[in-house]
Amino acid sequence: MKIAIYGYGNLGRGVECAARYHKDVELIGIFTRRAPDTLKTVTGAPVYSANDVLKFKDKIDVLILCGGSATDLPHITPELARNFNVLDSFDTHAKIPEHFAAVDEAAKSTSHTALISAGWDPGLFSVARLYASAVLPEGENYTFWGTGISQGHSDAIRRIEGVVDARQYTVPIEEALAEVRSGKSPALSTAEKHKRVCFVVAKDGADLVRIEKEIKEMPNYFADYDTTVTFITAEELREKHSGMPHGGSVIRNGKTGFDGENTHTVEFSLKLDSNPEFTASVLVAYARAVYKMAARGRIGALTVFDVAPADISEMSGEEIRAHML
Amino acid sequence: MKIAIYGYGNLGRGVECAARYHKDVELIGIFTRRAPDTLKTVTGAPVYSANDVLKFKDKIDVLILCGGSATDLPHITPELARNFNVLDSFDTHAKIPEHFAAVDEAAKSTSHTALISAGWDPGLFSVARLYASAVLPEGENYTFWGTGISQGHSDAIRRIEGVVDARQYTVPIEEALAEVRSGKSPALSTAEKHKRVCFVVAKDGADLVRIEKEIKEMPNYFADYDTTVTFITAEELREKHSGMPHGGSVIRNGKTGFDGENTHTVEFSLKLDSNPEFTASVLVAYARAVYKMAARGRIGALTVFDVAPADISEMSGEEIRAHML
Repeated sequence: MKIAIYGYGNLGRGVECAARYHKDVELIGIFTRRAPDTLKTVTGAPVYSANDVLKFKDKIDVLILCGGSATDLPHITPELARNFNVLDSFDTHAKIPEHFAAVDEAAKSTSHTALISAGWDPGLFSVARLYASAVLPEGENYTFWGTGISQGHSDAIRRIEGVVDARQYTVPIEEALAEVRSGKSPALSTAEKHKRVCFVVAKDGADLVRIEKEIKEMPNYFADYDTTVTFITAEELREKHSGMPHGGSVIRNGKTGFDGENTHTVEFSLKLDSNPEFTASVLVAYARAVYKMAARGRIGALTVFDVAPADISEMSGEEIRAHML
Repeated sequence: MKIAIYGYGNLGRGVECAARYHKDVELIGIFTRRAPDTLKTVTGAPVYSANDVLKFKDKIDVLILCGGSATDLPHITPELARNFNVLDSFDTHAKIPEHFAAVDEAAKSTSHTALISAGWDPGLFSVARLYASAVLPEGENYTFWGTGISQGHSDAIRRIEGVVDARQYTVPIEEALAEVRSGKSPALSTAEKHKRVCFVVAKDGADLVRIEKEIKEMPNYFADYDTTVTFITAEELREKHSGMPHGGSVIRNGKTGFDGENTHTVEFSLKLDSNPEFTASVLVAYARAVYKMAARGRIGALTVFDVAPADISEMSGEEIRAHML
């Protein structure tokens, strides 16, 4: 299977590395909108200009789109789905139906296959929610995120006057997690499930009291949450907080029996050293599914819900039945 | 979707109850090899003789086979797959390829759809192993079972001279579980992951020392394990140990990055009040997939690996994309 990467940030680098672990995957190259000769790739993979991507139409089985969900993917995915089998990690949950429709129309117009919103949330977490909900129709789903870096919240802090740099960790509240894991089904808001832990580098002489107040009172981002702010040096930030860990848990408590007398707790959890590298690993596995499903003539837009587990595996049906079932 | 149950033990009763939670499912009846009028069903569902099942050929969309894996399913599933779309919970891991081949041949001979080995292990645990392995090809899988009743081990104790009744709990060893959850990948045998906790009711005047010794030295079942034996009264066994809890965790620790520098832990875990009721709930969800896939002309034998998550859901594609992704 010949893949290529379109867009070369953290996610693109993750796909470049992930491809090394899949014996059936050949990485053709990386397409960038920057000047190709300014990019140094991790593995030495060749770099091409995004402007030349159509020249590779017949050389790429699946093109993995590594752009951002806010401005890139809404137009890039439909555009490229007219010429390639593609997949993306579109993660603006509220706009998924709209994105799906646009990609579906584009992919069908030229008989291509396009999978959207692969990754872990949306992605493997979505799959976990669906399995648990289908098996236990009577019950409640809970999603806890973290401990992990939230890029959006870190950026929001950086925009405050006097802030040089910042990292925000989303941390699940242990008591809430324990209550849900015990089989109870409390009503919990996002703020009742998570706290926000901020590490901030301030300018010399900046008003730390004002910065802390502005963070803690920021609507939507922090105001409703148990938020802690710790001021640290730029060196400490670099040394201790430059990783991109993340993770979380999807939990469903559901009832069975004649009258709901038995409770079952289904949990899927992730603890990730590197959020972009894990997301990239999911993308490569689903690129394989796109490749197999395109070969079977399944055209149009797809999500992880439409993909049978066997299609993301490198192994044959015989092998997975003998060794994994 | 019209379903029927073939075989009426704990699992059959579980399916009978589970069907109540699925709005799109209608339970046509229960087929038994016992005299139908001797059975009292939980929900008042009608009972028919297994001998009459072929008379219902056109009234049943999917027949759920609730027999045992040792002697029933190896011949029942292929036999009934010639006349119905069926699914079973065949769980003799080593014989799955053989069972799959027999069922595949039978189902294809008359264009039926037959899914084998649904449940949680094999079943949802298998699916969890496959997702994690496909996403992180470099890594190790671990399966921990329990805390839960093992029927086979309980039966083995009951066969000892002087034993009236017994329950054996398989219990994961906390230290091993914690080590794996921390991201390490130790080599662990089944005995290094689990201990065996036995509650035994002995005959009046039986030699308890001998019984305990026979249990602890029983090859395969107990000899390799940290085994504890507690003698209790028949009343205490009935009061405290008559449930059928089970569960466990599938964990994969996998590497990513240029040279495996980052570790990720993927865990799927179950905590079940009732093993047969949860297994039955999985069967009903997969019966829906058999129904949908049969309607699309997908004939022959299938496993959970061949089923896209969307096919086990009661919801439409639009609904799951809008609410679950």
